[in-house]
Amino acid sequence: MPPQTAQVDVRDAFIDLGVGQPGRSLLPVPIIRQAADHRFAQGASGYLQYGAEQGDGYFREVLAAFLTGSHGFEVRPDRLFVSGGASQALDLICTLFTESGAVVCVEEPCYFLALKILADHRLRVVSLPTDQDGLILDGLEDRLAALRPAMLYLIPTFQNPTGVTLPRERRERLVEICRRHQVLLVADEVYHCLNYDAVPPTSFGAYVDGGYVLVLGSFSKILAPGLRLGWVYADPRMVDRMTRSGLLDSGGGLNPFASGLVRSVLELDLLRPHLAELRGVFRQRITALGEALRRDLPASAFTVPSGGYFLWLRLPGVDTAAALPHANALQVGFKPGTWFSSQAGLTDCLRLSFAFYDTPTLLEGSRRLGQAMARLAS
Amino acid sequence: MPPQTAQVDVRDAFIDLGVGQPGRSLLPVPIIRQAADHRFAQGASGYLQYGAEQGDGYFREVLAAFLTGSHGFEVRPDRLFVSGGASQALDLICTLFTESGAVVCVEEPCYFLALKILADHRLRVVSLPTDQDGLILDGLEDRLAALRPAMLYLIPTFQNPTGVTLPRERRERLVEICRRHQVLLVADEVYHCLNYDAVPPTSFGAYVDGGYVLVLGSFSKILAPGLRLGWVYADPRMVDRMTRSGLLDSGGGLNPFASGLVRSVLELDLLRPHLAELRGVFRQRITALGEALRRDLPASAFTVPSGGYFLWLRLPGVDTAAALPHANALQVGFKPGTWFSSQAGLTDCLRLSFAFYDTPTLLEGSRRLGQAMARLAS
Repeated sequence: MPPQTAQVDVRDAFIDLGVGQPGRSLLPVPIIRQAADHRFAQGASGYLQYGAEQGDGYFREVLAAFLTGSHGFEVRPDRLFVSGGASQALDLICTLFTESGAVVCVEEPCYFLALKILADHRLRVVSLPTDQDGLILDGLEDRLAALRPAMLYLIPTFQNPTGVTLPRERRERLVEICRRHQVLLVADEVYHCLNYDAVPPTSFGAYVDGGYVLVLGSFSKILAPGLRLGWVYADPRMVDRMTRSGLLDSGGGLNPFASGLVRSVLELDLLRPHLAELRGVFRQRITALGEALRRDLPASAFTVPSGGYFLWLRLPGVDTAAALPHANALQVGFKPGTWFSSQAGLTDCLRLSFAFYDTPTLLEGSRRLGQAMARLAS
Repeated sequence: MPPQTAQVDVRDAFIDLGVGQPGRSLLPVPIIRQAADHRFAQGASGYLQYGAEQGDGYFREVLAAFLTGSHGFEVRPDRLFVSGGASQALDLICTLFTESGAVVCVEEPCYFLALKILADHRLRVVSLPTDQDGLILDGLEDRLAALRPAMLYLIPTFQNPTGVTLPRERRERLVEICRRHQVLLVADEVYHCLNYDAVPPTSFGAYVDGGYVLVLGSFSKILAPGLRLGWVYADPRMVDRMTRSGLLDSGGGLNPFASGLVRSVLELDLLRPHLAELRGVFRQRITALGEALRRDLPASAFTVPSGGYFLWLRLPGVDTAAALPHANALQVGFKPGTWFSSQAGLTDCLRLSFAFYDTPTLLEGSRRLGQAMARLAS
């Protein structure tokens, strides 16, 4: 049996621009090692015990202080619930706040793996239209009144796959609408801290009062996915419901050991410089990739995103799912647009990521992609 | 805000024999530290990446080898699915293999926090009677035929709360019955390796072929709960279903970082001697506690368990839930029997744990308990 050691096996010669994970060179072994040394030297052993259901209090305090610096409002430790990552949090939210058969609204396009989590909970997904500023709010109230969904799930900042960010005015109006229709708004903000340009609008965390908004955060995109550590920011009433769940009551906090380590990362102020480095690397990559794509795929339409992991590209007249084998033949991959549709649409779109490969490899990938599309057209 | 740092806050003067977690002195900081040093020194960084959905292949190989040594049959790495602990695994199983409103059968008495997980998934719990050898099989077929449950959940070895172990003959017959009635049998075996006397009967892992049996294992009771690391042993078809879930597909393997660490614990052969130490400590504690209880609570009926964390005690004629405040007044606690009943029964029983306190404290707890019951009787 060949041991599988990563979520996605990437062949060396093949450039899979569909892969949405940080590249090996961005995984901060020295930071984790330094944090571990610091934590082990403290004498205490609480991080090896069943942890507090809400998450370690010391960790939540230092995390709140860190997020306050980047989120544009005072993040409070008593509103933080420590999760095992955004996917785990979404799974728990589905268990606690929905029932089999309920309707959940998502954006079109939507993060395709969120759709799988919703499907595992037997939820009925209904997609809502978006434009260059994210979710379209005109007509939304009528849809919500007709559908009566249990939940609305969206990625408001540097969306996966489009890279689009919802402006402040839409955020405030959306919160009001969800409150009025008693729909739980789940804002997946795992890319919020990864801005390569202007600071994004205030996090949905500013609107959690009253319990209609849950915000998902994660260390997967800004530190290391393997830690399986994230958070939910919510009204104390919602935090309390998650804390009192059977899963938490039985297993204790979701990741005490990783929390202890990342507590040290934050106490030693190692995350801030790492984030600055990530921003610099990704800014440089996305600028270069944007230029290359304009040259290699002149017929394509796209906007260079100002944050996140992804670039969303439209190739008018091309069925990207059908084009994929042709691209693969030239040793390059991408994610076809239909993957991100809950209604088999978006057939002329595709998603590229610049998180995994360095700039020279991204440029070579763009070149192969251009070649594949040119061959396909001829 | 006073930071909460453990699942249960234990006051110093108070002896809470209801607490079911390992004591601080049993948390192996030096072992984890040695394993971390070993892992960080390897150069690779895969444990910081999104992990393989089934769990890291190297880790599963070394875990399979370890379990083969203690489980009485050849444990195969391709049948191991790495979980975030037994509670997380049970939660995932409920999501994937049951629907809201389905029936799940449990033992009476049953681990009370499993009941909470089942309730969060809106499952209807029906309890089945047990005797001094665990689940009673006579009449079971009729019950299953009438109830048509989606699942039967049990702790077959050193049960929580009773300490009882299901004999081999019942195991084989139970597997046959579940197969015949197409009921998913979930065997929670987190105490399997904690025997203080004879080796327990073969794990249910020996019966997973065909997909009707899922076995839950965990490092929480034998290494450290804070790692949030466990496994499911199952037919490849069932492993595949869990691997293809939205949660796993989106977040990757459930705990790559902890897997990397415990891989080193196993490779350095640090778990075997630690387990031997735990067995020695618990054997000594349970022997002393059993003698003390016979002296301090002469009217009680109990069997000293030969493994696990718990001692189950019956006090004929006593309402243990009503007695608890009287015990608390004397600075001692326990878990009343009703907590472990899905039908408000077991009122004259209580659960004690010997995992958290050292022997002198257990003896003092027994003395206080005897005093409380004597006062109550007079």
